[in-house]
Amino acid sequence: MALIVQKYGGTSVGNPERILNVARRVIATQQEGNQVVVVVSAMSGVTDSLIKLAREVSAHPAEREMDVLLATGEQTTIALTAMAINGLGSKAISLTGAQAGIITDQVHTKAKIAHLTPGQVLSHLEQGNIVIVAGFQGESSDGRITTLGRGGSDLTAIAIAAAIKADVCQIYTDVDGVYTCDPRIVPCAQKLEEISYDEMLEMASSGSKVMQSRSVEFAKKFGVLFEVRSSFNHNPGTIVKEETMNMENVVVRGISVERNQAKVTVANVPDRPGTAAKIFTTLAGTGIIIDMIVQNVSNAGSTDISFTLSKDELPKAQAALAHVVTEIGAQSVSATDGIAKLSVVGIGMRSHSGVAAKLFEALSKGGINIQMISTSEIKTAVILEETRINEAAQLAHTAFGLDAKPA
Amino acid sequence: MALIVQKYGGTSVGNPERILNVARRVIATQQEGNQVVVVVSAMSGVTDSLIKLAREVSAHPAEREMDVLLATGEQTTIALTAMAINGLGSKAISLTGAQAGIITDQVHTKAKIAHLTPGQVLSHLEQGNIVIVAGFQGESSDGRITTLGRGGSDLTAIAIAAAIKADVCQIYTDVDGVYTCDPRIVPCAQKLEEISYDEMLEMASSGSKVMQSRSVEFAKKFGVLFEVRSSFNHNPGTIVKEETMNMENVVVRGISVERNQAKVTVANVPDRPGTAAKIFTTLAGTGIIIDMIVQNVSNAGSTDISFTLSKDELPKAQAALAHVVTEIGAQSVSATDGIAKLSVVGIGMRSHSGVAAKLFEALSKGGINIQMISTSEIKTAVILEETRINEAAQLAHTAFGLDAKPA
Repeated sequence: MALIVQKYGGTSVGNPERILNVARRVIATQQEGNQVVVVVSAMSGVTDSLIKLAREVSAHPAEREMDVLLATGEQTTIALTAMAINGLGSKAISLTGAQAGIITDQVHTKAKIAHLTPGQVLSHLEQGNIVIVAGFQGESSDGRITTLGRGGSDLTAIAIAAAIKADVCQIYTDVDGVYTCDPRIVPCAQKLEEISYDEMLEMASSGSKVMQSRSVEFAKKFGVLFEVRSSFNHNPGTIVKEETMNMENVVVRGISVERNQAKVTVANVPDRPGTAAKIFTTLAGTGIIIDMIVQNVSNAGSTDISFTLSKDELPKAQAALAHVVTEIGAQSVSATDGIAKLSVVGIGMRSHSGVAAKLFEALSKGGINIQMISTSEIKTAVILEETRINEAAQLAHTAFGLDAKPA
Repeated sequence: MALIVQKYGGTSVGNPERILNVARRVIATQQEGNQVVVVVSAMSGVTDSLIKLAREVSAHPAEREMDVLLATGEQTTIALTAMAINGLGSKAISLTGAQAGIITDQVHTKAKIAHLTPGQVLSHLEQGNIVIVAGFQGESSDGRITTLGRGGSDLTAIAIAAAIKADVCQIYTDVDGVYTCDPRIVPCAQKLEEISYDEMLEMASSGSKVMQSRSVEFAKKFGVLFEVRSSFNHNPGTIVKEETMNMENVVVRGISVERNQAKVTVANVPDRPGTAAKIFTTLAGTGIIIDMIVQNVSNAGSTDISFTLSKDELPKAQAALAHVVTEIGAQSVSATDGIAKLSVVGIGMRSHSGVAAKLFEALSKGGINIQMISTSEIKTAVILEETRINEAAQLAHTAFGLDAKPA
């Protein structure tokens, strides 16, 4: 008998029929002899409708009240899911985030979990119930309703799995698992059987939007083994866990692609302490998220600093930098969009030289120009022209031997 | 400075525009120097949609989960109302039923309020907030979400008014107040300035569906003065309170009408102890609500027993009685629908004879036949043919001097 946490996202519970499908799947899991805790998101579309309603009564809705409002989305799903399971003849009990003991800080709309007291979850499990918990929400220590921000339901599932020491946490979504590359880009991409937390983190932060990084980080911190799988079929998914020795035999785990990037270059920055800090402190103050930062050795007392960011944030970044450039005595700011990032990820590359070389060679053979390069211990990322990114992904996928063998 | 509880029903908060209207009205009340607690219902239509969703996942949804589901309706409204007030520049805080300290028994979907600990309501008021409380919902002592059943939001408002010793509880609805008769039936009906709890109760149980009886009973028990008024204009409404000496000067307060009634007569019931009990115990066992019961003196050892009930429940009643009739040795059961009830209500009639006489005379002049008569201390009710009920109401209204004087 295992203790299993299952999390179903908004698409998986998007209408009554799908909720009934989830109910059947959950009951089957219990009937195989397991104890089951189910974490559910709001039905797809519900959160957006609620946000629209809020904007109709106030241009800048109070965040405290936004949380009270949004929390109704998951509360609706837990009730419906429990009803569906009851209706199919099994015992189920729903719990809101607060009832499930999820205590957060007081930062509305993006609260962090402070601690979790799963007493009610455990006692309902012991009484033979399937326990249905509202994802995405919690309660501050002074009794206010809070929400956990983007990816919050995944986080709820991982945190509960950690607190009740579950054997596995299954994250059900609308994809089959984690792939060596997005199959819409590289048709012969393969589903990975397993991946380490660190690789998953690099994939997540490089555009493979299966899960938000914070949930993976939480799972890594508390050693929660989880599986990403589809709620629309019964295929095994991808196991995400601590790296093991044999994982290192695989040099490259996968390739991820991020579009809609922009590149900004501040030219001829005087090469003295504090100039880079000035640039990035200014940007951080505006809340813009910067991805790659590249600075080469200086030449005649000055250097060029380049960074990438989401294309949408480019105007904001240009406005913020206008003053700074004169202040630090740099020459100019130039910006380009129409670029994309390709990342090659794998913990095995730590101990293998030649990954970067193989990537550059593959791209060069395809006649694809590399605009920027950035590497970490387990990732090599390059910036390319966006129009050629699919081609580049396919070339790299083949070069690293990731293509599926024809059936 | 007064402490005021305002309750807004589903129609009054039916869309964002109306919620903004409510917000303006609430802010105006505060700016006149009052402390304000606002109780809101679910937006009109929301509860029905939720019930529909529940039926799509389960034919007989578990009542515990139904309460979790339905409670989201009012939670949505409190958040939106607080946002709207914040957006207009005033301080507001929303509280769910549980957060407002409404503790109920454990009877899901029709819980009774056990006690109320309004600590949070009072402390937020003291900090200068308008406090928005979700109507219709509470929490059982073991932490489950409960709902109060029909008319539950009115009950929440009255109960909070009692607990915080409010000066007045204003029940905002889509009618202007309590009228001497339904203005759609009697165009010259007048709005009452005031009415006693007992009269309000008799009006409520006789078809004037402004409020459910249980809220009026609760207000009477705890001496909560309340006002029924419209959220769509600024007219004063009707004050409902303890009777005062001068109230008795008004012999008849109003006339109420209830359609869709049916009458059942059990003929030749042997006149011995226990036969009536047998009939009504059987009916009570099926959950059918019986209204008037009439039994006349017996004649040659047997009597006829008649009662009225809602037309919809007639088939159920006939089925339930089929066996009983033979068992008690009665002759037969006959049933008629197409009847209606007219009630004349007023605490003044206690000390005035002649109310019944005046009613019967008015109806007789109009050639309207009376099928059944039943009287209480402050009510005289008659059963008539349904097709003539409007005419009868107008005749009685005129006879008791209730018609508004032409402007």
